[in-house]
Amino acid sequence: MAKPKKTPRPKAETPKGFRDYFGAEVTQRTEMLRAIAGVYHRYGFDAFESSGVETVEALGKFLPDVDRPNEGVFAWQEDAEGDKPSDWLALRYDLTAPLARVYAQHQNDLPKPYRRYAMGPVWRNEKPGLGRFRQFYQCDADTVGAPSVAADAEICAMLADCLEEVGIPRGDYVVRVNNRKVLNGVMEIAGVLDPKTPEAFARERGIVLRAIDKLDRLGLEGVRALLGEGRKDDSGDFTDGAGLSDTQADIIMGFMQAKGATGADTVAQLRALVQGSDVGAQGVDELETIADLLAAGGYGPDRIEIDPSIVRGLGYYTGPVFEAELTFEIFDEKGRKRQFGSVAGGGRYDDLVKRFTGQEVPATGVSIGVDRLLAALHAKGRMQVSEPGPVVVTVMDRDRMADYQAMVAELRGAGIRAEVYLGNPKNFGNQLKYADRRGSPAAVIEGGDEKAKGVVQIKDLILGAKIAESATLEEWKDRPSQFEVPRDQLITKVREILAQHDQAAGDAGP
Amino acid sequence: MAKPKKTPRPKAETPKGFRDYFGAEVTQRTEMLRAIAGVYHRYGFDAFESSGVETVEALGKFLPDVDRPNEGVFAWQEDAEGDKPSDWLALRYDLTAPLARVYAQHQNDLPKPYRRYAMGPVWRNEKPGLGRFRQFYQCDADTVGAPSVAADAEICAMLADCLEEVGIPRGDYVVRVNNRKVLNGVMEIAGVLDPKTPEAFARERGIVLRAIDKLDRLGLEGVRALLGEGRKDDSGDFTDGAGLSDTQADIIMGFMQAKGATGADTVAQLRALVQGSDVGAQGVDELETIADLLAAGGYGPDRIEIDPSIVRGLGYYTGPVFEAELTFEIFDEKGRKRQFGSVAGGGRYDDLVKRFTGQEVPATGVSIGVDRLLAALHAKGRMQVSEPGPVVVTVMDRDRMADYQAMVAELRGAGIRAEVYLGNPKNFGNQLKYADRRGSPAAVIEGGDEKAKGVVQIKDLILGAKIAESATLEEWKDRPSQFEVPRDQLITKVREILAQHDQAAGDAGP
Repeated sequence: MAKPKKTPRPKAETPKGFRDYFGAEVTQRTEMLRAIAGVYHRYGFDAFESSGVETVEALGKFLPDVDRPNEGVFAWQEDAEGDKPSDWLALRYDLTAPLARVYAQHQNDLPKPYRRYAMGPVWRNEKPGLGRFRQFYQCDADTVGAPSVAADAEICAMLADCLEEVGIPRGDYVVRVNNRKVLNGVMEIAGVLDPKTPEAFARERGIVLRAIDKLDRLGLEGVRALLGEGRKDDSGDFTDGAGLSDTQADIIMGFMQAKGATGADTVAQLRALVQGSDVGAQGVDELETIADLLAAGGYGPDRIEIDPSIVRGLGYYTGPVFEAELTFEIFDEKGRKRQFGSVAGGGRYDDLVKRFTGQEVPATGVSIGVDRLLAALHAKGRMQVSEPGPVVVTVMDRDRMADYQAMVAELRGAGIRAEVYLGNPKNFGNQLKYADRRGSPAAVIEGGDEKAKGVVQIKDLILGAKIAESATLEEWKDRPSQFEVPRDQLITKVREILAQHDQAAGDAGP
Repeated sequence: MAKPKKTPRPKAETPKGFRDYFGAEVTQRTEMLRAIAGVYHRYGFDAFESSGVETVEALGKFLPDVDRPNEGVFAWQEDAEGDKPSDWLALRYDLTAPLARVYAQHQNDLPKPYRRYAMGPVWRNEKPGLGRFRQFYQCDADTVGAPSVAADAEICAMLADCLEEVGIPRGDYVVRVNNRKVLNGVMEIAGVLDPKTPEAFARERGIVLRAIDKLDRLGLEGVRALLGEGRKDDSGDFTDGAGLSDTQADIIMGFMQAKGATGADTVAQLRALVQGSDVGAQGVDELETIADLLAAGGYGPDRIEIDPSIVRGLGYYTGPVFEAELTFEIFDEKGRKRQFGSVAGGGRYDDLVKRFTGQEVPATGVSIGVDRLLAALHAKGRMQVSEPGPVVVTVMDRDRMADYQAMVAELRGAGIRAEVYLGNPKNFGNQLKYADRRGSPAAVIEGGDEKAKGVVQIKDLILGAKIAESATLEEWKDRPSQFEVPRDQLITKVREILAQHDQAAGDAGP
C-alpha cells in the first residue's frame, strides 16, 4: 500500500509587499491619527468610514496616478449565484473613490457642503520590493459642494494645525499653495495648449505637470530637459520630454520660479505672467483671496505661502493645489544631510461624482501621509523608538500566585502598567531576562523571607542597567538600584521610580 | 456609421453585505477601541497590527466555525510572474490566524510569554443579507506561551475591566467561566467519547458542544433534543442530533445545570460529576485555581463566576473557556423584553502554531465584540445617537469672508468645534437650515449693522428649537435664545451656551 503523502507545513511569512507592526509602531500611529482626527473634528469635519471593499464598477477602472499605469487594485469576482453575472469586488486604493461613491449615493441626506474626514488602510497591487508597501494608511479630509476658495484656505489652515498638533513646531514645516488655473493660463500664453483633441490636450498637460512636479528630485535643469526633448538619467534610461520649444519652456520655467520675497511680490509676478489669459487671471485672484483669508485667520507666510513650483502630479486637480513640506534637515541611512520633503498634499478637483451622476460637484481635500510623518519624527529624534514596558511582578513561589495576582491588580488599579510573570518561574534569571526584554522599568520580588517580614523588593531595572553599563561613574555610587520597602508601600515606591525615569526621559528629549 | 455606444454610468452603491459608518458611529467605536486598548496595555499586552491580507497558505483553508461550513474568505491569485506559480492571497477572517502566523515567524524575537492585542477589521465571504456584515471589527487580546491557568484568570479579569471601562457598570455584566476538560471528563464518564477514529471523535464532540452552546436560544428542552435524536424547529426544518442514549444525555444535561449557589458549590458538584475521569478532575482543579486567583485580585462572583453551561461552539478550545454576558434587559425592535446576551468570549487553545512549526504552544485569548457592545450601550440609552455639531459662523456679507474666518479661527483656538458656512450665502434661511442639519449648538451672525456697532449676534439653536417645540412652557419664558454681545465676548458667550447644554445633556443621562 502506498503511504499517504505528508502535507508540507505552511510557511509562516508576511505576504510579499505587506508588513507587520509591533508595539510602539502601532500605538504611535494610533495616537497620531487621533490627534489629526481631533483637529479635523474641531474644524467641523465629520467622521466617515466605509469598508475596505468596493465594487470595481464604483471604484472605476483606473488609478489616478498616471505615472504608475501598471499599478492596479486587488480584485476578485463574487461567487456566482444562479445565472446572474456576479459582481467584481476590489480593495479600495484610496479614500477619495469611496467618498465619491458615498456622496453620489447619499447626497440628499448629507449636509451641503459636506465636510468629512476618513482614515484607514488602502491597498495597491504594486509589484512588491519597491520600498513601497501594498497596504498603507491614508488620512484624508475633504469638503464637497463648496465652490468658494474659502474651502481651500480652510483646508490649508487645518493642515498647518494638524502638523503642529502631531509635534512639528512652527518653522519646521511650510504649506505651499499654488493654483492649476495659473499654470493653465501660463500654458495658454506659451501656446502649449493647442492640441487637436481633448485626449492630446490632457496628455500634453500631464507631461508638463509631471515634469514640474519633479523639481525637488531633478532640479531646474532636469525639469528643463523634460519640458524639451527629454532627459537621460544616471542609469542611462531616457524619459521622453513634452517637446516644448525653447520659448515655451522658458515661459514655464519662469512660472515655476516666480516666487517673490513676499506673497504680494509673488502675486504680482504671476499676474504679469498670465496677462491676457482669463483663466490665468482668475487663478491669480483665487490665490490672492486664499492668502487674504489665511492672513485673517492668523496663518501668515511663516506657515502657509504661495509657491508656483508646487503643481502636484495628478491630472485631476482643477484649481488650488497645496503641499506640506518639512523644512528641517535629517540624515539619511548613508549619513547624508537631506530635506525630509513632502508629508501631505491635496487640492481642488471638481468632477468628484460626475462619473456617477453626470453633475459637476466641486470638492477640495487633503491627504496626510501619517507613515511619512512618523518617520520624520523618528528621524528627528522626537519620538521614542519603543514604549516603556510593564512593571513585572516576579514569581518566587509558584504556590503563591494569588499573592502576585493581588499585587498586579493593585498596581493596575493605581494606573500602573503591570503584569505577573507567566512563564516557567523555576529559573529566576529567566524572569529578569524577560523583564529586560520587555523594557520593564521595575521588577517586584516577594519570596518567602520577604513575605514573612511583610516587605517586598523592588528592582529599578533601568537604573540597574545604567549602573551595570558604567559602574565606575560617581553619580551612581550612592544610588542603590534595589529597594526593600514595606508591602503597603509598594505603589508609592514604584510610582517614585517611574517618576524618576519619566523625568530623565524628559530631560534627554530634544 | 454606427453610433458609439454610451457607457452606462456606474451605480453608486455600497457593495452587498458591507456598510458605511457616519459621524458618531465612527467616533464612538474609535473611542471604545481606545478605551479597551488602554486596559489591554495596562495589563502588559503589546499592540500588534498586521495587514488585512495574508497568504491563503498561512491562513489555512478552513474557518474555525463548523456551524457555517459554507462561510469562506475573499481570495484572489497574485498576477503571474514568469512561470513560477503565483500565490493565493486572502483577506483575514479573524485576528487569531495572523497571530499564529506572526508567532511562528518571529518566535525567537518575541518575549515569552507573548501578550499581544490587536484590533481591526476582518472579512467573511458570507452570503449578504443574513443581518451579519461581511466586514466587522475584532478586538482581541491573547497570551501565547503561558501554560498556566493564571493566564486565563488574568484574561477574565481584564475582560471585566474592559467592560467597566467602556461604560457597563458592575452588576450589568457577568463573565462566565467553564473548562472544556470538565466537559471532556463528563463525556468520558457518560461513555460518549468512545469513537472508532479521531475524526469521528471530533465530530461527535462537536455536535455535543454546539448543542450545549445553543442553550440560551433553544432552552433546556431544545438542547436535550439535539443531544438525542434531533430537533425540528418552528419552520419544520430538522437538525440531526448527537444520538446519545437517554442516560448519556441526562449526564450531559446534569453537567450543564451543575451551577450551585456559590462557586464552591459548583466546584463540588462538578467534582462529583467527573469522578473517575483524570482529565475531568484536572479541569475542575483548574477552575478552582482560576476562582482563587480572581478572588485574590478582587474579582468576586459578582463579576466573574463559574458556569458549566458555557462551552463555546468552536472545536479548537482545549481548556478554560469564558464568555461575557450583559445581564440587563433591553427591548428589541418589536418592543419585547429580552436579555442582551454575549458580547465577548474566548478560551484556551493549545495548537496555535502547530500547523506551522509542529510544536504545541499554549495560548489563551479573548475577543470583544465592539459592535455588539456599542449596540448594547445604545439600546440601554447610555450613548448619544449623534454627536454635537460645530458652532456655525454664518456669512451675512460675502465680501467679509476674512472676518468670518478670523472668528472661526478664534473659536477653534479656544478649543471650540466651529466652522464658517461655505455654501451659497445668499439665502440666510438656508444657512440656519444647514446649522440645524449639522446639529449645531449655536450660530454666530455678524451683518453690517453688527459690524458697525462692534457686536455679534449669537443664536442658541438647541434652546431655540426647544422653545419652538413647546412655546407655552413657563421655563422658557424669560430665556431668550438670541443674544447680542460685544465682539470681544464672542468666546465667553459661546462657552456659556455650550456649558449649559453639556449640563442639560448630563442631567438627562441615565
